[in-house]
Amino acid sequence: MAAKFLKLQNWTSLNFCIKSYSLAPKNMSTYAPKGCMAAPFTPFTKDGKDVDYSKFKSYADHLQKLKIPHLFVNGTTGEGLSMTMEERIKTAELWMQQKDKFESILLHIGTGNLKDSIQLASHAESIGVDGIACIAPSFFRANNEESVVSYMKEVADAAPNTPFYLYDFNIMTNVYISVSRFFDLAKDEIKTLRGVKHSSPQLPSLFTGMREHRGYQFMMGTDDQYLAALSLGSEAIVTSAFMAPYFNKIIEAFNSGDLEAARNAQEACQKVVNVRSKYGTGPQSFAVGKSMMPMLDLDLGPVRLPLVSLTSDLAEKLQSELKAVNFFDWVKV
Amino acid sequence: MAAKFLKLQNWTSLNFCIKSYSLAPKNMSTYAPKGCMAAPFTPFTKDGKDVDYSKFKSYADHLQKLKIPHLFVNGTTGEGLSMTMEERIKTAELWMQQKDKFESILLHIGTGNLKDSIQLASHAESIGVDGIACIAPSFFRANNEESVVSYMKEVADAAPNTPFYLYDFNIMTNVYISVSRFFDLAKDEIKTLRGVKHSSPQLPSLFTGMREHRGYQFMMGTDDQYLAALSLGSEAIVTSAFMAPYFNKIIEAFNSGDLEAARNAQEACQKVVNVRSKYGTGPQSFAVGKSMMPMLDLDLGPVRLPLVSLTSDLAEKLQSELKAVNFFDWVKV
Amino acid sequence: MAAKFLKLQNWTSLNFCIKSYSLAPKNMSTYAPKGCMAAPFTPFTKDGKDVDYSKFKSYADHLQKLKIPHLFVNGTTGEGLSMTMEERIKTAELWMQQKDKFESILLHIGTGNLKDSIQLASHAESIGVDGIACIAPSFFRANNEESVVSYMKEVADAAPNTPFYLYDFNIMTNVYISVSRFFDLAKDEIKTLRGVKHSSPQLPSLFTGMREHRGYQFMMGTDDQYLAALSLGSEAIVTSAFMAPYFNKIIEAFNSGDLEAARNAQEACQKVVNVRSKYGTGPQSFAVGKSMMPMLDLDLGPVRLPLVSLTSDLAEKLQSELKAVNFFDWVKV
Amino acid sequence: MAAKFLKLQNWTSLNFCIKSYSLAPKNMSTYAPKGCMAAPFTPFTKDGKDVDYSKFKSYADHLQKLKIPHLFVNGTTGEGLSMTMEERIKTAELWMQQKDKFESILLHIGTGNLKDSIQLASHAESIGVDGIACIAPSFFRANNEESVVSYMKEVADAAPNTPFYLYDFNIMTNVYISVSRFFDLAKDEIKTLRGVKHSSPQLPSLFTGMREHRGYQFMMGTDDQYLAALSLGSEAIVTSAFMAPYFNKIIEAFNSGDLEAARNAQEACQKVVNVRSKYGTGPQSFAVGKSMMPMLDLDLGPVRLPLVSLTSDLAEKLQSELKAVNFFDWVKV
Repeated sequence: MAAKFLKLQNWTSLNFCIKSYSLAPKNMSTYAPKGCMAAPFTPFTKDGKDVDYSKFKSYADHLQKLKIPHLFVNGTTGEGLSMTMEERIKTAELWMQQKDKFESILLHIGTGNLKDSIQLASHAESIGVDGIACIAPSFFRANNEESVVSYMKEVADAAPNTPFYLYDFNIMTNVYISVSRFFDLAKDEIKTLRGVKHSSPQLPSLFTGMREHRGYQFMMGTDDQYLAALSLGSEAIVTSAFMAPYFNKIIEAFNSGDLEAARNAQEACQKVVNVRSKYGTGPQSFAVGKSMMPMLDLDLGPVRLPLVSLTSDLAEKLQSELKAVNFFDWVKV
Repeated sequence: MAAKFLKLQNWTSLNFCIKSYSLAPKNMSTYAPKGCMAAPFTPFTKDGKDVDYSKFKSYADHLQKLKIPHLFVNGTTGEGLSMTMEERIKTAELWMQQKDKFESILLHIGTGNLKDSIQLASHAESIGVDGIACIAPSFFRANNEESVVSYMKEVADAAPNTPFYLYDFNIMTNVYISVSRFFDLAKDEIKTLRGVKHSSPQLPSLFTGMREHRGYQFMMGTDDQYLAALSLGSEAIVTSAFMAPYFNKIIEAFNSGDLEAARNAQEACQKVVNVRSKYGTGPQSFAVGKSMMPMLDLDLGPVRLPLVSLTSDLAEKLQSELKAVNFFDWVKV
Repeated sequence: MAAKFLKLQNWTSLNFCIKSYSLAPKNMSTYAPKGCMAAPFTPFTKDGKDVDYSKFKSYADHLQKLKIPHLFVNGTTGEGLSMTMEERIKTAELWMQQKDKFESILLHIGTGNLKDSIQLASHAESIGVDGIACIAPSFFRANNEESVVSYMKEVADAAPNTPFYLYDFNIMTNVYISVSRFFDLAKDEIKTLRGVKHSSPQLPSLFTGMREHRGYQFMMGTDDQYLAALSLGSEAIVTSAFMAPYFNKIIEAFNSGDLEAARNAQEACQKVVNVRSKYGTGPQSFAVGKSMMPMLDLDLGPVRLPLVSLTSDLAEKLQSELKAVNFFDWVKV
Repeated sequence: MAAKFLKLQNWTSLNFCIKSYSLAPKNMSTYAPKGCMAAPFTPFTKDGKDVDYSKFKSYADHLQKLKIPHLFVNGTTGEGLSMTMEERIKTAELWMQQKDKFESILLHIGTGNLKDSIQLASHAESIGVDGIACIAPSFFRANNEESVVSYMKEVADAAPNTPFYLYDFNIMTNVYISVSRFFDLAKDEIKTLRGVKHSSPQLPSLFTGMREHRGYQFMMGTDDQYLAALSLGSEAIVTSAFMAPYFNKIIEAFNSGDLEAARNAQEACQKVVNVRSKYGTGPQSFAVGKSMMPMLDLDLGPVRLPLVSLTSDLAEKLQSELKAVNFFDWVKV
């Protein structure tokens, strides 16, 4: 798949990125996922009480058909923070069993506390993930970059041979830091530092970081700012898996110089975002996303409390609104 | 006026409160802690990596000398959410070994995810705590009272014979709900519902809940609103342990009708709060609190990242500012 | 009226306040309004386009019957910031024509810009108001206490013989300062500084200021924290005019030592606040308040955009909800 | 890619935009400023007390040399809301005297209250400005799109022959609305509606509005999102006047298909933004901007309280930091 994907895209337009990243320090991993990175949901059993371990293979096949090169596992979409340590570990292992269908797997090992994240980081390295990412705790919120660096260093050091990404998502964690200043401080401290999954919506933060810290990866993580981030030079975008066809189209059009076609695809994507937001915003938007899976003939179960799955009435209404914006034509595989 | 005030009320240990709570539904536990409930820190080893299990006895003796009747264990002050499941369980058990020094122990079993909280609730009941309290997750934030009720019901049901308290602390979790509406909805759903630890600072929320839901306990949880909450009828106040002498004085003066003395004590307390806030606000304020323990000859170790313990320089400066507002005279035991 | 009011209330209980304010610097005015200060609405014509100058007399009579000693004119309730300079000036003058019905009139002269406020301050002194209050601009928001002091000094200096109050209302202006630090800095700068109308809801801010800056007046300005502020020693409370009967009852009960009666009255008040909040919160809550005037047989016209008057349907629903919480029994005159 | 990109688009002055706006309703003005619109400061006298009417000619000459086609007068940069009505009117007239140096002048007539804005709108039409823009009040904040539409309709109707723009700047006003929904509702109500000056930083809001409401102008108004907004199709950008050379370069490079050059220019611009932000953020950032004018040999006086001009020490430090990021090379005229 990966080969085909590369051929289809013919990433010439992203060459500048590759070039600009040639300054990477020698001691840094060469892991550098490009293009679309998809955050899968975690399949749960009908009552939400357990991970549904029977669904990983079929879900992975589905993702492969969507031409998704990279996975971001156990993140926000995957409800990683609603899972127990045992579930986090087992889920990571099950995704690794599907690894041959993807170019790479980036594992989120952030939790609400340092010790658990250290343990997950250590486990991640033991199962050979391509990289790890870690979010800052949202309850005991760090109030400056220094403490985030200290925290992340402890986590990263538990996986000394695995590329490390900061997972910055300030509207979820309410931890507001300067990503660029984080890199200023972290560069010398965190030997495995490789980049950031920048799900915080502020593009100037992404751009400043990207330009001041060449050699590191700044991956944008918001569905509705694909095109803008591309124009700024972001080389990978983390998205809900089913949005991949939109992004693949945007990048293809952008690279071929057809800006109006890229805008049209971004507009189509924005329409889906706008429809979804009517059914739930903030954290609840992830519940809305998971409610869309059965519409794609792949029921991955409910979300876990305090998120709430859509009622069947609302799901039906959502489905008809999604149909009206041609969502199902876009994501047909 | 003062004399008349005293005579009319003739308060003995806030008897008026007991009266106003006489309407409690029959199926409700009679657990009703009154007066000061102290939230102990969790002793950590010097490097912060482990709970220092050797310190519980001496710390409990200290708390007993401070005349603290009730403990609120593994809450925010205790850094419960920075501890692993194993540590949470063991710490709960160690505090229960000190139980004979206190009237009651209320155990916080809230975590970042439902399954862990259910497990802690079940364990709590097995070790015989007097009550449990649960906070809502701060990452996947509930966006209405209904989902908080659903979440808390699952937790409470795992300890069917243990009084249950909502732990509402909106400035930490960023979950903003109407506490009163929570009780409207939860009353029939959560059989063991007993009250709320109301650490959110909004007094009108506390007061509305208290008046609309007689029979339930509304315990105020902010150091700097002791007196105001008392005037509104809150019968128990959760505080940093070392602040107990201030509160004991406030309540004594208030009950004897000497309002000016109560205000003076509250002012003394406010001065400590104001000094502390210079060294750290928000979550970091709990780090400042723990840094004060060695000044009381009881070193409980550092806080855990992302909180950061004060440097020795800052701790010294803090100590001298605390001295200037007579803190050490107040808390002498 | 004033004499009768004082006799009826027999303010013995507030004696402590008077005492505690005996340290007032010599160069300070002796203006010290006590008890209830009411913020009247500004009567507008039916289309909202003009001030209805014909209504001031009847409205003043109404306020007098409610036993309101002090007026706070052209503030938030009065929609001062929605009025033109000409209207501000004329309205101030018309209220001054009703002055004999009240003990004192405190005029709000805050606007969105310094020059206008200076002009209004100068006019205020020329018409002999008892005091002036000024709010900080909400668009060009000050970001520290220093700039608020500089701003207020310019305004206060334009009325060198009129007591000056800071009007602090952070949830409306989004200017968040430490009121206590403002006084630290302003004391020497603003010769006429007399106190603060503290409509910001944070009681610890009120209390800290009150205790650190004796000799100045700290007037609480939120309907739902009457009792709590009283317990802390606030000697005057600014409120919607029609809420005066609630406050008069709370203060009477509090002073006579009947705390439970005070709580009951505060609860009755809270019920009105809670009902109102269903029909509009934040700035819009003032529109809801004005919509209640016709229910008291005194139509003061609509609010001005961007506030929106309640539709007649909603007003009817509101009226029936207010009836259910006995509002009309309380405010009968 | 670049070559192909260029050929396919062959942009001359953003022609593609003109095309996409060809659906404009017939009854709409044809005013459609393209490219850079600069928001000039208002020159004040040394003490800040008066507008310095002697400076307009030389400042206009300076702006002309910077190749600025359009002016946005009396907005946030111009401290419009810190000026009296008389000053607003006179300043508007003085800029109109310089009109021959520019393609068009868009006048901001928003104030803190409806009546003043109506008066300014009426005056604006009388002096023949090319368009007017209006911001929503920040004190009495509208809480939905309906009330913003009602407010703006009253203002726009006072200038029935002048194109009308919403001025949306949510981080200044704290009025958060859906711009797209505003247009949904306003289209039929406001006959002169022509577009929005979108200074709120949320690009998805800009983009959604732009795509759902073709025929209207969506002008981006944040210095640090030039390139991203361009990629989305925004055809005009409102900026501090002295930043025009950056934007002219960005747009030139973007149009010629040289994306990396556009990014480099945006990076240079971002560096200035980042330097400025060290000296003041939020409203105070406009004070920092004005402090930069003497460095360009054009002293426009101080800002007005509550904004605070930089001290000469800080201004010197700022100047040397700006020099380090080559600011003065960029803005040389």
